[in-house]
Amino acid sequence: MRHLIEPLDLTTDEFEFIFRLADDIILDPSKYLDRAKGKLLASLFFEPSTRTRLSFETAMLRIGGGVIGFSDSKVTSTTKGETLIDTIKTVENYADICAMRHFKEGAATLASKVSTKMPIINAGDGGHFHPTQTLADLLTIRHHKGSFSNLNIGFCGDLKFGRTIHSLVRALNRYEDVNFTFISPKELKMPDQFKSFLKSYDETDSLTDALPDLDILYMSRVQQERFVSSDEYERLKDFYILTPEKLKRSKDDMCILHPMPRVNEISVEVDKDPRACYFEQMKFGMYGRMALILFLLELV
Amino acid sequence: MRHLIEPLDLTTDEFEFIFRLADDIILDPSKYLDRAKGKLLASLFFEPSTRTRLSFETAMLRIGGGVIGFSDSKVTSTTKGETLIDTIKTVENYADICAMRHFKEGAATLASKVSTKMPIINAGDGGHFHPTQTLADLLTIRHHKGSFSNLNIGFCGDLKFGRTIHSLVRALNRYEDVNFTFISPKELKMPDQFKSFLKSYDETDSLTDALPDLDILYMSRVQQERFVSSDEYERLKDFYILTPEKLKRSKDDMCILHPMPRVNEISVEVDKDPRACYFEQMKFGMYGRMALILFLLELV
Amino acid sequence: MRHLIEPLDLTTDEFEFIFRLADDIILDPSKYLDRAKGKLLASLFFEPSTRTRLSFETAMLRIGGGVIGFSDSKVTSTTKGETLIDTIKTVENYADICAMRHFKEGAATLASKVSTKMPIINAGDGGHFHPTQTLADLLTIRHHKGSFSNLNIGFCGDLKFGRTIHSLVRALNRYEDVNFTFISPKELKMPDQFKSFLKSYDETDSLTDALPDLDILYMSRVQQERFVSSDEYERLKDFYILTPEKLKRSKDDMCILHPMPRVNEISVEVDKDPRACYFEQMKFGMYGRMALILFLLELV
Repeated sequence: MRHLIEPLDLTTDEFEFIFRLADDIILDPSKYLDRAKGKLLASLFFEPSTRTRLSFETAMLRIGGGVIGFSDSKVTSTTKGETLIDTIKTVENYADICAMRHFKEGAATLASKVSTKMPIINAGDGGHFHPTQTLADLLTIRHHKGSFSNLNIGFCGDLKFGRTIHSLVRALNRYEDVNFTFISPKELKMPDQFKSFLKSYDETDSLTDALPDLDILYMSRVQQERFVSSDEYERLKDFYILTPEKLKRSKDDMCILHPMPRVNEISVEVDKDPRACYFEQMKFGMYGRMALILFLLELV
Repeated sequence: MRHLIEPLDLTTDEFEFIFRLADDIILDPSKYLDRAKGKLLASLFFEPSTRTRLSFETAMLRIGGGVIGFSDSKVTSTTKGETLIDTIKTVENYADICAMRHFKEGAATLASKVSTKMPIINAGDGGHFHPTQTLADLLTIRHHKGSFSNLNIGFCGDLKFGRTIHSLVRALNRYEDVNFTFISPKELKMPDQFKSFLKSYDETDSLTDALPDLDILYMSRVQQERFVSSDEYERLKDFYILTPEKLKRSKDDMCILHPMPRVNEISVEVDKDPRACYFEQMKFGMYGRMALILFLLELV
Repeated sequence: MRHLIEPLDLTTDEFEFIFRLADDIILDPSKYLDRAKGKLLASLFFEPSTRTRLSFETAMLRIGGGVIGFSDSKVTSTTKGETLIDTIKTVENYADICAMRHFKEGAATLASKVSTKMPIINAGDGGHFHPTQTLADLLTIRHHKGSFSNLNIGFCGDLKFGRTIHSLVRALNRYEDVNFTFISPKELKMPDQFKSFLKSYDETDSLTDALPDLDILYMSRVQQERFVSSDEYERLKDFYILTPEKLKRSKDDMCILHPMPRVNEISVEVDKDPRACYFEQMKFGMYGRMALILFLLELV
C-alpha cells in the first residue's frame, strides 16, 4: 500500500505513469466511468477548503466510486476529544482511500503511519505539503510545454509561506535544465532550506524585470492568515499584482498559473488573455486526482 | 446551453414539456434510474436551505447522477476573499449542472453570465426569484386542476416579500382566465410592480371573506428575517392563520399550497384535511427538478 | 413498514436474521453491491456524530444506494422555526429510509409516528436509545464468542448516563445465562430502572477486582457534557482507566469493547493487545447497518 504525503513520495517514473493515465482519462472519460465501483473515498477536511475537497470528490465520483466525509471538523468527534489516530483507525473501517486536509503540519504523515489498509492522500497539512496541487501544476505545465526541461519558471508573491510553491519547486527540480526565478518582497523570500538543493535559480524583487524571460509564471496569493500583524499584510498584499499592462512584456506562449483562490494578485482583465491557464489548471487537478486515486487503489 | 434564473426564462411550451416529462417520471421512475449516469450536479448553497437543497440532490441521485457541493458558505473559499465569479469558473471544471442559492439578489444572473459550459439553476437569490418552487407549484396545481385556466387563486400572508409568490403570479399570468385574489394586511400587500401587468385580480385583508370563492389557496410564511423590527413581526405574524374552522367555508376541491417551511400560519389540524396539498407539493417539486435537470442537460 | 427506535423493537429472531445477513455480506460483499440501487437514505443528524453518520452513509453506499442529508441542524429549516414533524413529512417525500440523530429524547419515536412511508432508524436520541450501536456490539460479541449465552459481561465507567450500555444490557438480558458485572464509581452507578429486570448481576467499584472473571469488558467514555459541574467531571473521568498492567489479570480470550470515541479511559498501549476489539467493532457496526437497511427496506 502506498500513501501520498509529499510530492517526492512519487518517483518521476510514477509521476509519468500518472500523467499518461490522466491523458487517457481526458481522451475517453467514459472508459473510467465504473472503474472504482464499490470503492469509497473518505474526504476528511479538518480545515475547510471547498476547491480541493470538491476536486477530490468529483474525481472519485467520475470514476464510479462513492464519497463519505466531512468539510469542517467542528461537526466531528474531534470536539469530543478524539485523537486523529483514533479517527483514522475508525475511518479505515469504512473507506478504501482517504483524502485528508488538516490544519497541523505532519498530520497526514501521522495518519499514514496509523492506517494499515487505507492509502492516505495529503490534501494539505498546515503550511507544509499539498502534493495533489503539485500534480495539477505539473500536468498543466506538461500539457502546454510538452515536458519539464529547458524551462524558466517564475514564482511570484508569497514564497515564504506558499506551501504549493515549495512543493512544486521540489518536484520540478528533479527534471533537467529547469531554472527558477523567485520574485518577491524581501519579507516573503523563498526560504534558504528550499533553495539550497536547487540546480539553478535567480532572485529578484521586480515582477516587471523578470517577466520577459519566463516560460511559466506561477502567481500566489498573499494569505492574511499567514501574517502576524494585519498592518504587515496590508502593506504587502498589493505589491505584486499581474495586469494586462505588465503582461505586454512577457512571451506570447508564457503560461500563467495560480493555485487559487486569488484575491487581487491577478487582475480579472488577465482572465481573457490566452496565457491565463489558472482555471484550466483546476480541470487538470481533477484529472490528476482521478488518475492518482486509480493508481493508489491499484485499479490500473 | 440554457440557464433557469427566473420562471419566465422558460416559455409556456417549455414548461409543458417539463410537466409531461415529470408525468412520465412519476409513471415509471425506473426508466430514468441511470439517465444522468456520469453527470454531476454542483449544489452550491451559500445560504442554508435544507428543503430545497435536499430536493435538488434527491432529484439528481434519482436520475442516476452524482452530487458535489456545500450547504453553508462558511466552509468555502468565500471566506478567503474569493469572488462568486471565480467560484463559478472553478466549479464548472468539476460539474455538469449547478443549483445555486445565494443571499444576494442577482447572484444567479451573474453566475449564468460567467458559466460557459454549466447550466445554472437559480435555487433562490435573496428576496428575488426561486423558479423551481414555481415549477413545484405549477405541477401541483396542474395535477389537481388539470390546467391553469379558469381558476381563482388566492395568495395569503406576506405578499410584499414573498419571493415564491411573486414568481408564481408571473408564471400563472401567462395562462388564460386566471384571477388572483391577494389576501394580506396592508403592511404586506402585493407590490404594485407585480400587480401592474396582471389581467385580473382582487385585493382584500380578510381571509374569511375570500375563502368561499377560491380554487387554490396559497399560504405563505411571515418570515422574521424580512422585518426591520421584531415588534412589527410579532404583531403581524399571527394575522392570517388557516384553521379547520375557517376551511368550512371553502370549496370541497380547493387545494391548499404552501412553499414551506410553515411556522403557524396553517394549523397542524389542517394537515389531515384532503384539501391540504403542501406536503405532496414537495414531492412534485422533486419530480419537477428531475425533469428540469434532464431538460437542461439535454438528456431527453 | 418497520422502524427501529430501541433495540427491543426487534425480536431475538429478527436480530438473528440480521446477524446472518451480516455474515453473508462479510463473506461476499460484491453480491450486495447493487442491492439497494435507486434507494435513498436520509441521514438527518440534528446533533453532530461523525462516526455514526459515516457508518450509516458507508453502509448505504456499499449496498448501492444513495445518501442525502445534513450533519448539523444549524444549516436546516429548524432555524426558521420548522417542527420535527414537518421535517419528517418533508423528507419522506425524498428518501426511502431515514437514520436520524437528535439531541432530544423521544425525537425518533415522534418521527416514527409521523412517517407513513419511510422507516426510521434511531441513530441516537439524547441520553436515550442507540439501537444500531447495540447491533454493532452484539455482532462483535457473537463473532468472538459464538453466542450470547454463558457469558460474564462487565460494563465499566459511566453506567448512569451511558445510553449505549443501557441498550446493550436490555438486549443481552433476553439471552440465557448472561451475568452482568457493573463497575463504576457510586456517582455513576447503573440506575435501578435498568437493573430491576435483570436475571443476574453483580456490582463493584473496582475494575481490578472484576477483571479476572470477565468474558467481555465493555468500557465507556465519561462524557463531560453529561455533568453539571466541571469539577465533578475532572474528579471522576480518570477513575477507571484500562491499562496493559491491569489487563494482565484478565482472561486471554476476553474481548474489550467500547462504543467510541474514547478519551483516555483505554490507554493507547492497549490497542496492540489482541483482546482489543473496539476498532473492529466499528467494522461490525457498518456491516450490521448494511444488513439492517436491507431488512427494513425488505430487499432480502
